[in-house]
Amino acid sequence: MSSPEIDHLIRLLSRLPGLGPRSAVRVALYLLARRDSVMQPLARALGEGAAAIRECSRCGNLDSSDPCGLCRDSTRDTALICVVENVADLWAMERGGQYRGLYHVLGGVLSALDGVGPEDLRIASLVERATDDATREVILALPATVDGQTTAHYLCQRLDEAAGQELAVTRLAHGVPVGGALDYLDDGTIAAALKARRPA
Amino acid sequence: MSSPEIDHLIRLLSRLPGLGPRSAVRVALYLLARRDSVMQPLARALGEGAAAIRECSRCGNLDSSDPCGLCRDSTRDTALICVVENVADLWAMERGGQYRGLYHVLGGVLSALDGVGPEDLRIASLVERATDDATREVILALPATVDGQTTAHYLCQRLDEAAGQELAVTRLAHGVPVGGALDYLDDGTIAAALKARRPA
Repeated sequence: MSSPEIDHLIRLLSRLPGLGPRSAVRVALYLLARRDSVMQPLARALGEGAAAIRECSRCGNLDSSDPCGLCRDSTRDTALICVVENVADLWAMERGGQYRGLYHVLGGVLSALDGVGPEDLRIASLVERATDDATREVILALPATVDGQTTAHYLCQRLDEAAGQELAVTRLAHGVPVGGALDYLDDGTIAAALKARRPA
Repeated sequence: MSSPEIDHLIRLLSRLPGLGPRSAVRVALYLLARRDSVMQPLARALGEGAAAIRECSRCGNLDSSDPCGLCRDSTRDTALICVVENVADLWAMERGGQYRGLYHVLGGVLSALDGVGPEDLRIASLVERATDDATREVILALPATVDGQTTAHYLCQRLDEAAGQELAVTRLAHGVPVGGALDYLDDGTIAAALKARRPA
């Protein structure tokens, strides 16, 4: 449009989810009108975030420390591992405020169509954590989609083989709308589904 | 949610126009999954943009050079000044590709309700530029709102007083938008288009 710096900024902003070319222009102008109060702090937060935030080597959560804050929290029940597809779903579980165990972020679900196999997901480390003597229950909080349920079924088998009968493998109760993403559920539904979890 | 860095980033993102708390989380996770390819470049573009981009001291356009690229462009007609409310409107005019004169960004419109008076806008410098011998015409491209038209009326008077009859002060024609259906137009626009009808 005008200077190459502004064009470059608009191009980067328009790549963000939910922003198109028009709204990227609007955001750029909003920022340029608030250079010191918003634009510079956002630049710093992005730069520092990109440098500091990493995946937790234990559970896959995003945090500036490794192990992450949830894994290091001594008040949480280390006998429980909740398996989620991604960090957004982990945050959705935490918003519910009901669950006090640990997490395991798979990083996706199995998908023949997208060519996602077991080796593309954080499954080997889940099996390893689940076979630890301290772990009593693995809760599969995967989306109620076909791929999510296929993944849950596959994980059940793997965990049964590896850990046997001592390990309870459960999944969230129905109450999760079929085809719905966890991230968009209200907190009450998540809490109810967690409370009514059943053996897989 | 989790780490203070991520919370801080989400809080800043949710302040951007068009983003709420939910979409800010989505953008943050999108960025954290693309730390090197998107997040760091965006951080740099924002930081460099905030440091380099300034308002042109002549016309009020945003650019990394002062005077801005448009003011320095020797191929443009310096006898014409197009007055716009803000930089977004300047860019809209430039997208049209028809106008080859200079600009003057007011930085808003007069508004009794919002307490915006003439001294809050870039009006004194407009009068100064308009009284320059090189300037033959000032085109008021202000929004067709009550405040916009009040501002246009006020500018007309100020420019007449200062520059007299040698200076032409014009405004954009009202009419039917190209590609617009009559059925969806407000009555005021239809009346204006009818009044300004031209031989076919």
